[in-house]
Amino acid sequence: MSRLKAVILAAGAGTRMKSKLPKVVHKILGKTMIDYVIEAAKEAGAEEICVVVGHKSEIVKKEISYDVEFVLQEEQLGTGHAVMMAKDFVGNEGNVLILFGDTPLITGNTLTDMVNYHSNNNNAATLLSTIVEDPTGYGRIIRDESNTFIKSIEHKDASEKERTVKEINSGMYCFNSHELNMALDNLTNDNSQGEYYLPDTLKTIIAKRLSVNAMITNMPEDILGVNSQIQLYEASRIMQKRINYKHMENGVTLMNPTNTYISKDASIDSDTVIYPNCIIEGKTTIGSDCIIGPNSKIVNSRIVNNVNVESSTILDSFIDSNTNVGPYAYIRPNSRIGSNVKIGDFVEIKNSNIGNNTKASHLTYIGDADVGSNVNFGCGTVVVNYDGVNKNRTVIEDNAFIGCNTNLVSPVKVHNNAYTAAGSTITKDVPEYSLGIGRARQVNIQDWVRKKR
Amino acid sequence: MSRLKAVILAAGAGTRMKSKLPKVVHKILGKTMIDYVIEAAKEAGAEEICVVVGHKSEIVKKEISYDVEFVLQEEQLGTGHAVMMAKDFVGNEGNVLILFGDTPLITGNTLTDMVNYHSNNNNAATLLSTIVEDPTGYGRIIRDESNTFIKSIEHKDASEKERTVKEINSGMYCFNSHELNMALDNLTNDNSQGEYYLPDTLKTIIAKRLSVNAMITNMPEDILGVNSQIQLYEASRIMQKRINYKHMENGVTLMNPTNTYISKDASIDSDTVIYPNCIIEGKTTIGSDCIIGPNSKIVNSRIVNNVNVESSTILDSFIDSNTNVGPYAYIRPNSRIGSNVKIGDFVEIKNSNIGNNTKASHLTYIGDADVGSNVNFGCGTVVVNYDGVNKNRTVIEDNAFIGCNTNLVSPVKVHNNAYTAAGSTITKDVPEYSLGIGRARQVNIQDWVRKKR
Amino acid sequence: MSRLKAVILAAGAGTRMKSKLPKVVHKILGKTMIDYVIEAAKEAGAEEICVVVGHKSEIVKKEISYDVEFVLQEEQLGTGHAVMMAKDFVGNEGNVLILFGDTPLITGNTLTDMVNYHSNNNNAATLLSTIVEDPTGYGRIIRDESNTFIKSIEHKDASEKERTVKEINSGMYCFNSHELNMALDNLTNDNSQGEYYLPDTLKTIIAKRLSVNAMITNMPEDILGVNSQIQLYEASRIMQKRINYKHMENGVTLMNPTNTYISKDASIDSDTVIYPNCIIEGKTTIGSDCIIGPNSKIVNSRIVNNVNVESSTILDSFIDSNTNVGPYAYIRPNSRIGSNVKIGDFVEIKNSNIGNNTKASHLTYIGDADVGSNVNFGCGTVVVNYDGVNKNRTVIEDNAFIGCNTNLVSPVKVHNNAYTAAGSTITKDVPEYSLGIGRARQVNIQDWVRKKR
Repeated sequence: MSRLKAVILAAGAGTRMKSKLPKVVHKILGKTMIDYVIEAAKEAGAEEICVVVGHKSEIVKKEISYDVEFVLQEEQLGTGHAVMMAKDFVGNEGNVLILFGDTPLITGNTLTDMVNYHSNNNNAATLLSTIVEDPTGYGRIIRDESNTFIKSIEHKDASEKERTVKEINSGMYCFNSHELNMALDNLTNDNSQGEYYLPDTLKTIIAKRLSVNAMITNMPEDILGVNSQIQLYEASRIMQKRINYKHMENGVTLMNPTNTYISKDASIDSDTVIYPNCIIEGKTTIGSDCIIGPNSKIVNSRIVNNVNVESSTILDSFIDSNTNVGPYAYIRPNSRIGSNVKIGDFVEIKNSNIGNNTKASHLTYIGDADVGSNVNFGCGTVVVNYDGVNKNRTVIEDNAFIGCNTNLVSPVKVHNNAYTAAGSTITKDVPEYSLGIGRARQVNIQDWVRKKR
Repeated sequence: MSRLKAVILAAGAGTRMKSKLPKVVHKILGKTMIDYVIEAAKEAGAEEICVVVGHKSEIVKKEISYDVEFVLQEEQLGTGHAVMMAKDFVGNEGNVLILFGDTPLITGNTLTDMVNYHSNNNNAATLLSTIVEDPTGYGRIIRDESNTFIKSIEHKDASEKERTVKEINSGMYCFNSHELNMALDNLTNDNSQGEYYLPDTLKTIIAKRLSVNAMITNMPEDILGVNSQIQLYEASRIMQKRINYKHMENGVTLMNPTNTYISKDASIDSDTVIYPNCIIEGKTTIGSDCIIGPNSKIVNSRIVNNVNVESSTILDSFIDSNTNVGPYAYIRPNSRIGSNVKIGDFVEIKNSNIGNNTKASHLTYIGDADVGSNVNFGCGTVVVNYDGVNKNRTVIEDNAFIGCNTNLVSPVKVHNNAYTAAGSTITKDVPEYSLGIGRARQVNIQDWVRKKR
Repeated sequence: MSRLKAVILAAGAGTRMKSKLPKVVHKILGKTMIDYVIEAAKEAGAEEICVVVGHKSEIVKKEISYDVEFVLQEEQLGTGHAVMMAKDFVGNEGNVLILFGDTPLITGNTLTDMVNYHSNNNNAATLLSTIVEDPTGYGRIIRDESNTFIKSIEHKDASEKERTVKEINSGMYCFNSHELNMALDNLTNDNSQGEYYLPDTLKTIIAKRLSVNAMITNMPEDILGVNSQIQLYEASRIMQKRINYKHMENGVTLMNPTNTYISKDASIDSDTVIYPNCIIEGKTTIGSDCIIGPNSKIVNSRIVNNVNVESSTILDSFIDSNTNVGPYAYIRPNSRIGSNVKIGDFVEIKNSNIGNNTKASHLTYIGDADVGSNVNFGCGTVVVNYDGVNKNRTVIEDNAFIGCNTNLVSPVKVHNNAYTAAGSTITKDVPEYSLGIGRARQVNIQDWVRKKR
């Protein structure tokens, strides 16, 4: 294969989004549109990628997750003008893809097909086209009787007969870099709009009697452009179905894939069942035989096998096998939960390590703590990790038993096999096998209620 | 414009709903069906509205949110009979709309079009009609070769040829009030069902050689009548789409508009993102750059800009800008939350004011309290606002630091810059810069665990 | 009616499910596919049911909820071979249905129709067929000009002309038991696949000039086979719609039936409103005038009339009338909640009885307790039911008032009209009308904060 680069146009404002944000950084299932396009280009083999930025370019640059080059298109003078900004990047070797930051559904597969088609036919330029039922508004691909490509023409410039054509131009291309470079030199804005049109480069190339053709993809969804919030939703729905059906084909049970939201970067093993209305974001991995949901949100976390998570939120954490989380638990970043653990209802874990077989069943907060194995947290336990000035760590060793409504005032250590009495505020370490107790003795005041009333 | 009134028929039982409630008070996205119809009439310019009630009229009267007149139709003797009940209301001046309480999808736009069509054509009566693919069961609009309106005929009375007509009568009308009034005088129940039919008034009016015609709306959904729970759901789905797509067109991102439930009366600014499965009820307003959801329920509240709400419930409250709520927070009515505040997980706020930059991060209850700025609530704080007899208010001034698992027994005041120690029950005011402490000193009982075992 | 039995084939591996579990035990709305088929057979009058198991037969046997016979098909040698395994069960009397464990949408109604058709026409064998738009891949029903059944032919064996037939064979049959039994004796595997085909029995029966015919059902969904996770979802969606629309027809309001998940075994009375995203599993019964949801999960519980449940989880429990649960409550198994009770936010109830008019409004855990009427639990109450070795019960009698952040250390009893002071750990019984108090007195340390800083 010859060298492949990609230029992605992302300079537009996208005013129909009615948003302060530039269009291409709007997200689908947690990932910006332009990141999807970059990933497709990479999957098709693009070694270097150049993004043409313009409107609010700083935001676009900041939101892109990949190492790409940027060129600035200060004025919006047409697609040809945008590519001219990247002329140095295009260079004279190999081929270059021309893509758009607002077509997030384009896939590496389709681009690979186009690149192969381009190479196999010794094309100087290849357009990506598709057939749609209603082509109104789209540029049409005009072919002669022998089906040879003649030109691409805008809807508004097309004749009645040309408008009956259902093959439309996606706007995406694969060019021989050298030919594109030369054609860009000839490009003019000698038209009613005063814009530089990229399709005009084809005329230059055809005039040199080089081969130009359009490859028809049978995936019309791939070329869907997003220009409004409604189209953003439509693209999201298609992306969601692609991702979810892939997981189902791999043996994951999704009770309702229309309201399960899984990041493209997540992996899930077979025989895991996902209840409705879960959100699985970022680079989350979930093992096999898990039950997830309903209403769980899991972000950038690793969940091992046979874990149950119910109606809980897990952020940037690790959950080992056979552990139960929730319902209504909140595991905050940098937590590492062992095997056979129970993190129950109304429990928050933050920046803590929890050993195997430990239980925090209800109404408990464990923050900045290192907890051993076989520890039992009574209901209402609070790790007091903040004194108003500093945050400190707490250590609770194996087999400790923390009584209900205990405060563990950090920094403090509860040693192996130690207990704390319910209702105690523990400010000093509790030695092994000791009971730490700090509470007043109960007295009953007779008839207090009758007097009060 | 001449004076416009509206009569809304709402006397029917709606037995197919299988409900104890009269049909027209069933709700779509938190609003009764009849309120939607009243709003459409008002949007079309109706200055006075009369609702014809019958079945369980007291419930209907109670559920209507607007100032309207009521007349009682004691027996159900046909649509003509229902309008006869409102004869005095109709009067002799201007025009009158005849509408139904069970067609919640009718819009002010469509009614305005009908009123304009009525006036522009000097009609004495105008029917609202539409074209449907399958007209079976509906009354048909019969026109002659020159497209002139002849009559409206019920499906069961129509000939084979008439049944091929796809233009159907919505049952909604705009009448010249005087002509309707006169025609009602001539109305008889001289038919097989013994009912007074409103369409019979058209015959009287046509006999006077006055102009009667049907305006065809191209919005067939507008005339959808709701007769069953399934149709209620279908109307809900259409209303939901109308509302949600309007927000999307205004620059709000809805991740899944098919399971986002927004009241018609809510307003949301652009660049706010709404995660799936949120319910936004009543006259809620949400500013720009907010992130709402998933699974949040917000009722009659005002949320300012750049607020994050996650998996929380907010009722009748105010949340100022840059504040974070949730996940799993519950803000009950009459709460006023400042800017830059954190109301975290498993926190309930009730009937309280919370100053700027204050944090209640977890497992806390604040009820009937006035809280200043820069206050920190430790985990497990409880405002003890109820002594079994009375509810009292608590005051916590700026920069106070409330230790974990503190009870603040109301009425009590924690002054500026005061602290309370973790595990204390505070029954007396804590002066400025003081530490309020009420807990037993910790002792460790050696070997207690070995002996216990 | 003559005696009816059913044989259900459930020996296949279902490799396309990509699952360790045998296919027929995959679940739709909480019930295994094979249980649905067994229920349909019973509804059609089958008195005895035999399930042919093979792949991972122990799991299949364990997951079936009904009293059925099992026969083992060790090798998978075709549908005829599977039925041969049940030859003794089939016997010689009455009729027998041949069904599949992976067609969960088959209904008792359709099977009853087939049995009646079979009997009324004195058939020796009746196939269940249906008409589909695209019959590709299915076995076709071939009839002669007079519409008489000739044969069922596999897609791959069918001629071009036969492939145009849109009547397809469901694979389900009703046989005269005696004729099936005799035909099985003649069945050979003398074909290219070396398999015993059940349809070959029809040839034997037709050769005896006995009546064989196909009954066409107009419910093509009924015969949908599930071979993949995606088909499992499609079948789930159809089942969900059947169940939910039935409830809507009975007067239940479902705000969004596409994301409400109700078990086939649940019952719900009219005028109950179910908000979106609820899961109602198992043999749950819900009375009238309840409001359920959003986001509630109710399993195997009984909810009486006029109960509100919001964003809560209820397992194997009873909730009496006029009670409010949630938002964010968790009621665990074996709880019995009285009338007019409030179980509020962040409250867990476990294995407890709660009397009428009692309130546990927030942040409370009640486990293994017997609670009387008119009790008030202050916020942060914990029933300390576990001492690290045993779980004990707690008794709280009528009209008791439990102060906030109280620990009730089991076994302990709070008598009628007794109070506990906020922040107390109660280890001894509190007599009637007494106040149990166990906390240190508050002192304020002046200027502590200035010194600390």
